Amino acid sequence: MDAIRIALVGVDADDTLWHNETVYREAERMFCSLLGASGGDEQRALRQQLLATETANVPRYGYGIKSFVLSMLETAVNRSSERMSTDRVRGIIGVARWMIEQEVALLDGVAPAVRELNRAFPLVLITKGDLLDQRRKLTRSGIGDLFSGIEVVSEKDERTYEEILLRHGVSPQRFVMIGNSLKSDVLPVVAIGGAAIHVPYPYEWEHDRLPTDEGHAATDRWVAADRFDQVPGILDSLGR
Amino acid sequence: MDAIRIALVGVDADDTLWHNETVYREAERMFCSLLGASGGDEQRALRQQLLATETANVPRYGYGIKSFVLSMLETAVNRSSERMSTDRVRGIIGVARWMIEQEVALLDGVAPAVRELNRAFPLVLITKGDLLDQRRKLTRSGIGDLFSGIEVVSEKDERTYEEILLRHGVSPQRFVMIGNSLKSDVLPVVAIGGAAIHVPYPYEWEHDRLPTDEGHAATDRWVAADRFDQVPGILDSLGR
Repeated sequence: MDAIRIALVGVDADDTLWHNETVYREAERMFCSLLGASGGDEQRALRQQLLATETANVPRYGYGIKSFVLSMLETAVNRSSERMSTDRVRGIIGVARWMIEQEVALLDGVAPAVRELNRAFPLVLITKGDLLDQRRKLTRSGIGDLFSGIEVVSEKDERTYEEILLRHGVSPQRFVMIGNSLKSDVLPVVAIGGAAIHVPYPYEWEHDRLPTDEGHAATDRWVAADRFDQVPGILDSLGR
Repeated sequence: MDAIRIALVGVDADDTLWHNETVYREAERMFCSLLGASGGDEQRALRQQLLATETANVPRYGYGIKSFVLSMLETAVNRSSERMSTDRVRGIIGVARWMIEQEVALLDGVAPAVRELNRAFPLVLITKGDLLDQRRKLTRSGIGDLFSGIEVVSEKDERTYEEILLRHGVSPQRFVMIGNSLKSDVLPVVAIGGAAIHVPYPYEWEHDRLPTDEGHAATDRWVAADRFDQVPGILDSLGR
């Protein structure tokens, strides 16, 4: 990546700073169990159906736990006959509550790395999802005070990043974004002239998986890191 | 209200710029009908139950349509025996979709008044609720371009307003907030040293009704207007 005078560093939240995908995967397991899908094939089919419902609902509901639980309910209803057990509906609502109550588990090495970043640059959290969910997670994470701002957005596209940078009075050329999604955290930022560091999460989120992921190679505007704790060193080597 | 050099005007959205309460009231009627609550007493009891569920769920779900529909489902489940009709669940999900698809109906005189305000002051929309819902409504309203920013927040308390003003680099003494809720739009702003114009909506929202509403009288820091179209004149008379 070329040298750059950094004025603002944006950081993604879910699966970049803390585990999130694992919570959704566990919620899916609960859902399969509530619906009595026991065999591997049956569970896979049910997950596919849930994912299709979620994807269809994104324009309507957006992202986050409430959207996810509404898609679970819709999937359950579509698989039921005329009547369904109230325990099943109650159980699905219970999955939402379980998700909301989860502790925030930071990824390895994140806390010291974010502290180091905070000493060098203004940090802003830029995340999709539900406003309340994301604020709650940031508070529970214990590293919320290290961010000078939080931007919860509906989509992470070029226009969203442009708006955020305009509001912060920072030109794209002096902005670096860090996140686990090529589609949301890297490519739109690079497209508007910013730089990015891609820190992949072991499981990638279905909605964020690009069909062309393999075709993307790091350029002079973005690099890949294996772990978040490599980020301060990379930014340092870019100069400030 | 005392003269003030205005640097930023905040405007609430639901029931200040456009009708919102009417959509929720209609959704409640649909819900009563889906649950077969026919008589006036029965409907009132069901609404009370729904409101209690909503209120209990605010810390968990926040505000907005998805939270409302999850509370409707919970209320329906708690009134059902072991099994419930899938049509009922599907119907409740349908209410959410109906709400999401509603056209935005501006209150009388709002569009020209906001245009007039936009010529004189930087305007920022400050609203509780769901991020996606509120952005969608602003886009559909046709007056979205008149606002230089939109702040969707989880709660409208003193700290929230302080954070927003800090981010905009505006001191509270140069900020005026306009909205229909004393609790959310007027009192916290006045408490931090700002000014406010209260434009009551005919129906007040249950969560925003202060038990002490009657005890509040306009002061030198806030005034009441009967309609939104009086707002530009009031701000004008304060000087800039």
